[in-house]
Amino acid sequence: MSTVDISYLEQIRSLLHDQGAAEALRELAGELQPYDLSELLTKLEDEEQLLFLAALPPAIAAETLEYFDPVEQYHFLDHLDPEVAARILNLMPSDAVVELFTALHPRQTEQLFALLEEPFHEQIRNQMSYPENSAGSLASVDYIAARRWWTVEQTLSHMRKVQATAELFNYVYVLGPLGELVGVISLRQLILADPDTRLDEIMVQKLITVPAELDQEQAARLVANYDLIALPVISSTGKMVGILTVDDVVDVIEEEATEDIHLLGGSGPVETPYFKTSLATFFRKRFVWLLLLFVAQAFTGNILRHYEGLLAQVVALSFFIPLLTGTAGNAGTQTSTMVIRALSMGEIRAGDFLKVIWRELRLGLALALPMAAITFLRALLLGSSTYMGFTVATTILVTITVSSTIGAIMPIVGKKLNIDPAVFSSPMITTVMDSLGLIIYFQFARLILGF
Amino acid sequence: MSTVDISYLEQIRSLLHDQGAAEALRELAGELQPYDLSELLTKLEDEEQLLFLAALPPAIAAETLEYFDPVEQYHFLDHLDPEVAARILNLMPSDAVVELFTALHPRQTEQLFALLEEPFHEQIRNQMSYPENSAGSLASVDYIAARRWWTVEQTLSHMRKVQATAELFNYVYVLGPLGELVGVISLRQLILADPDTRLDEIMVQKLITVPAELDQEQAARLVANYDLIALPVISSTGKMVGILTVDDVVDVIEEEATEDIHLLGGSGPVETPYFKTSLATFFRKRFVWLLLLFVAQAFTGNILRHYEGLLAQVVALSFFIPLLTGTAGNAGTQTSTMVIRALSMGEIRAGDFLKVIWRELRLGLALALPMAAITFLRALLLGSSTYMGFTVATTILVTITVSSTIGAIMPIVGKKLNIDPAVFSSPMITTVMDSLGLIIYFQFARLILGF
Repeated sequence: MSTVDISYLEQIRSLLHDQGAAEALRELAGELQPYDLSELLTKLEDEEQLLFLAALPPAIAAETLEYFDPVEQYHFLDHLDPEVAARILNLMPSDAVVELFTALHPRQTEQLFALLEEPFHEQIRNQMSYPENSAGSLASVDYIAARRWWTVEQTLSHMRKVQATAELFNYVYVLGPLGELVGVISLRQLILADPDTRLDEIMVQKLITVPAELDQEQAARLVANYDLIALPVISSTGKMVGILTVDDVVDVIEEEATEDIHLLGGSGPVETPYFKTSLATFFRKRFVWLLLLFVAQAFTGNILRHYEGLLAQVVALSFFIPLLTGTAGNAGTQTSTMVIRALSMGEIRAGDFLKVIWRELRLGLALALPMAAITFLRALLLGSSTYMGFTVATTILVTITVSSTIGAIMPIVGKKLNIDPAVFSSPMITTVMDSLGLIIYFQFARLILGF
Repeated sequence: MSTVDISYLEQIRSLLHDQGAAEALRELAGELQPYDLSELLTKLEDEEQLLFLAALPPAIAAETLEYFDPVEQYHFLDHLDPEVAARILNLMPSDAVVELFTALHPRQTEQLFALLEEPFHEQIRNQMSYPENSAGSLASVDYIAARRWWTVEQTLSHMRKVQATAELFNYVYVLGPLGELVGVISLRQLILADPDTRLDEIMVQKLITVPAELDQEQAARLVANYDLIALPVISSTGKMVGILTVDDVVDVIEEEATEDIHLLGGSGPVETPYFKTSLATFFRKRFVWLLLLFVAQAFTGNILRHYEGLLAQVVALSFFIPLLTGTAGNAGTQTSTMVIRALSMGEIRAGDFLKVIWRELRLGLALALPMAAITFLRALLLGSSTYMGFTVATTILVTITVSSTIGAIMPIVGKKLNIDPAVFSSPMITTVMDSLGLIIYFQFARLILGF
């Protein structure tokens, strides 16, 4: 199932060391999917990896390489015979080439650029002019283009010719004289149509398109919403830039969810898989946030020193500090997580902001009431006075309500200011609530206990 | 772009109230995507919605309905003329029908079942026998099936006949006499092949398949890994159950990420979109967790009371409580979030557990060292003695290291015990670290300050 039979590894090894076995090796590779080949490749020795890649049909080698990260891809291409490397590189989908080129050192990029043939070379240069993480940089140029006056017959015969490089075979895009997109025909329509029909008689002209400048996350949501296999990406002048396919969308959606989750955990987002990320990278991503939160958290020391007299008189006040600040932080975390996810799923729009805050305020109050009653009982159980019980219960009532509301306000304000709402993570909310909660607590203590 | 031109709404309204405008209405609808139609539909009055759905071609109405949740779908189908409802329902993809039927009250399900025609009726019954959230229940039966002795010509002409109901046109699945999957042919291959070729001469026999019992998350990852548009789902006896398409995979991946994010925020996962979820549902999902964490957190009260004498002698000890527990909680949250995401992305496997814990222990120590130095300075700045500074610095050193390690251990142990690792959320880790951190703190205080 998910992991490929390990017995292939031994067969590949023995075939690699046998000069005359090229054909047998290709046959073996033909039985496997590129993903499986990539898994096998990682298990080979350095020298064997290069032999194996060179032995694969270039189109298969190109698909296999896609499963590696840019640094590894460069390593392979750099160590292969330049002619073999060029053949493989020119067969990679354009979005994969753009991803590779933008990740490398400019000198390495130029070295690989020299291997590209026209018109691919030109297309890649063009696509690299779009900002990283925009729909334009993600688009693949390996779609099938046709002209409006072509017949169905002509189009099908054109498709047979270009089939080796087309990433997507489901749609034919009809382009005007300046490369502008004028219509789309599905392969299904082509098969059903009379062979002599002209494309402009059957093409769909009302199109859903993605602007090339659009952020990849929004573009991905567009493809996902329409449940389509691909959407055309269009430049500001109406020219066809490429197509955005649903398998790229899956990657974008996973990537963006991972980014949100890492930020919500109070750390910078890490883009590489867990074991491919060095401890130094993790250290950098985490230390900055840990330090920032520490500085914010350090205010609690000043607040507590401010109320030193009160604390010295009623040591029992300190018994409740972690419980009160912890619970308020938890309520705020719940709200902010819900709101942040709904924002990134596009469920909450700009016009809804006040409505969301009003909802979360009421929900916070509804949660605060029973929690306050329970806190009151807990205080009595711990042997506190009724006054003390009232103090902690009132504090819980106010802090849970405030913290739920703040948990909604912070990500929303962030969104307005164009800050990723996910930075208003649980550690952020709990840190803010620690200080705020202490002030509320001591003010109520003064008021109710009468110091 | 993403939102459809609102001027359509007025046109639709006026056409709906005009008896003879059925044709014009269908033409208008033809210009729009089902997703757009669903957006327009929500803006119409109840009565208009039913008129509009009945006026649409049934296949389009079926696709439009897919964008609504089960309760709304039932509302429409129940209020439409039964004949119209039956036509629409029989054209919905089987995975959508299964999703609808499993969400409804059994009586409502039976009412709709009566509308299904054979063999769809039988297929749906069959598919509903798979557990919810398994690949089998997600599979769509709207694929194109062929026999091994068919020629390419015969197959293409069969495809022309069934094209209205097939969800996926990219692959033809070749079935054996008992419905077992024996091969796959892509439409690309069909177009390129000689019309008289038999399917078993060109079909691919080495297949990647998904077992019907597999959890939807693992099945989704399989499709995503192989970058394929669809994978066949196979029963334990080798029979073809249906296909899992990449657009369903997008939904599963988004759903699972949302679930993880909600759990990480310390609340039960909420499955409906933000504004479609009642405050009562949010209350239930959140209150249980808030209460659970409160109970765990309440131990801090006992710990502090245990050290009451120490606290009364050195009130300054309490100044550092929120800072120390907060920072340790943050470090633990960072680790657990990273590990939980890597677990659900399949980046960490069962054999890696000790390696992960060892990594996070070292990383925790690396982060703890500079943080301890900073804490020491902070204590001196707050006017504490050098001894006091040593106490808090040592506490930070130990708690950050411990908390990073625990942040890795808890989700991993959870995974081993088959508990969703995401329940070991930030609130969970911070709550545990509050108690543990206090004990470590007071023990060091006794030792270093000599009480």
